[in-house]
Amino acid sequence: MSPIYVVGHKNPDTDSICSAIAYAYLRNKMVEAGKIKGVTEEAVPARQGDLNPETEFVLQKFGFDAPELVTDGEGKKVILVDHSEKAQSLDNIEKAEIIAIIDHHKIGDITTPNPITFINMPTGCTASIIKKLFEYCEIEIPQNIAGIMLAAILSDTVAFKSVTTTEKDKQAAEDLAKIAGIDDMMAFAMEMFKAKSDVSGKSPRDLLFRDYKDFDMSGNKVGVGQIEVVSLDLLADVKDALYEEMKKVKEEGGYHSIFLMLTDIMKEGTELLVVTDDPSIVEKAFGKKLEGRSVWLDGVMSRKKQVVPPLEKAFA
Amino acid sequence: MSPIYVVGHKNPDTDSICSAIAYAYLRNKMVEAGKIKGVTEEAVPARQGDLNPETEFVLQKFGFDAPELVTDGEGKKVILVDHSEKAQSLDNIEKAEIIAIIDHHKIGDITTPNPITFINMPTGCTASIIKKLFEYCEIEIPQNIAGIMLAAILSDTVAFKSVTTTEKDKQAAEDLAKIAGIDDMMAFAMEMFKAKSDVSGKSPRDLLFRDYKDFDMSGNKVGVGQIEVVSLDLLADVKDALYEEMKKVKEEGGYHSIFLMLTDIMKEGTELLVVTDDPSIVEKAFGKKLEGRSVWLDGVMSRKKQVVPPLEKAFA
Ligand SMILES: [Mn+2]
Ligand SMILES: [Mn+2]
Repeated sequence: MSPIYVVGHKNPDTDSICSAIAYAYLRNKMVEAGKIKGVTEEAVPARQGDLNPETEFVLQKFGFDAPELVTDGEGKKVILVDHSEKAQSLDNIEKAEIIAIIDHHKIGDITTPNPITFINMPTGCTASIIKKLFEYCEIEIPQNIAGIMLAAILSDTVAFKSVTTTEKDKQAAEDLAKIAGIDDMMAFAMEMFKAKSDVSGKSPRDLLFRDYKDFDMSGNKVGVGQIEVVSLDLLADVKDALYEEMKKVKEEGGYHSIFLMLTDIMKEGTELLVVTDDPSIVEKAFGKKLEGRSVWLDGVMSRKKQVVPPLEKAFA
Repeated sequence: MSPIYVVGHKNPDTDSICSAIAYAYLRNKMVEAGKIKGVTEEAVPARQGDLNPETEFVLQKFGFDAPELVTDGEGKKVILVDHSEKAQSLDNIEKAEIIAIIDHHKIGDITTPNPITFINMPTGCTASIIKKLFEYCEIEIPQNIAGIMLAAILSDTVAFKSVTTTEKDKQAAEDLAKIAGIDDMMAFAMEMFKAKSDVSGKSPRDLLFRDYKDFDMSGNKVGVGQIEVVSLDLLADVKDALYEEMKKVKEEGGYHSIFLMLTDIMKEGTELLVVTDDPSIVEKAFGKKLEGRSVWLDGVMSRKKQVVPPLEKAFA
């Protein structure tokens, strides 16, 4: 019997990987407990691409292998976590059978021919919703699963500094830290961010696509990437090469614009690198003019809440 | 301060009206209890159109007035219940701010610029999900709200005869009947269905649009209506006029096809009246040829699960 693949978005981040593992576990337990009828195939976590160094660090710390690589949805049963946009989902997602969606982003353009479970909440992280679902289903969270769920929350909320952070995320993280036996959450977050900041030996293309999403904004193809580091100094040597790479990708992919967020976790702000057909879009979106090839956006750390919505408005 | 309108689909059925009332109540209680931050305006139930006689009977029985009529979403804050399709939602829904969606249908084409709460479950009725949300939020259900929620479940599941019925619906109905003080659920359901079967004094157009939904099926405009009666005999005198009305509406609205389900609640089947540009679509969808202007579909009672999905496949 073919399994149900639980899979996050393209260019997976820590939430997409860890929530896939956690939800696959929860779903299998729910089937065991008779709480799910009908589609009861085994749930198997999957990933759409390479792990970033932060996620590698997290999986290794808690003893998980990388999930199976799955990029094409055709003929597969799938559960989507951490996204509901076709552009971020598996290739041929329209030929997959979508069993459920668990997400915390804006409602995307995926539709289904039948009623399914779709739970989207405006939390800072998918793992915070999955934590609630564990509670709701009265299923115990194993120590190592709690560890990776905590990591997902700390990663997505940048240790609660992101404006996307909610009380639910903080509460979930506290509970999960207890289960995982992690006494100093902030020290753990810093270890993760150091792993994430490691750009050594990576090609500009790898860095650009490490955490990169495509959007359709009023008919324009727009890419928004993000590199988070504990200090922008770490990117000084690669910034020129990143910019050249963005220009190349813009041509190859027929983009209207590509934005790359260079996010300084400690300073709590983002240098936004921009290649675009219309530089005025930056001022329209953020109220600040492009200075040369970039603009500094103080306090901006969230693509989802602080970059994509103003861009969508500016393009509308 | 302008309110948040909680509103079901066009041509409202009992679930769309009663779930709007129940969720507006729940949301206001959640705000009171401090469980919702941010958008805390008063939630007010609304309806997109006239009440059907079943819903009128239910609201009168439990002492509710008809919700406020709202048809245009422009500039309004809204919560959608019982639908997630643009075609079934308020006019100018793209100019409304959607705060949340609670639904039990296939995932529709509504998208949002920001993360919101979207809870969709494959239950037989929206009210069954709202019942779970009351429990989850630990908010007590008042007796009269329990009554209309029970009515919504009995209506949407045709007293648990519809294939859409799940264990969750049955459990919710039992709990709600206790709270509402209704000892004989089936007698109550029969009262409702008799009210619903009342077609006397209604124009063919009113009957056609009483429970009617538009769909976009692979680029074709398709309408699917349903009239549920305790016996098809009740419709014998109006069937000709209904068919003529369907032909008129097809021309006026530029439809590819209009399907009208004449559902016999007691016999548990549907006579499907059809006007279409392509009569072969009926056999493609249901494996049975059109006989004249209609086809009898044994066991078919659910538009959502037994009529729309095979039609969408046939059109694809
Ligand atoms: Mn996430
Ligand atoms: Mn319904």
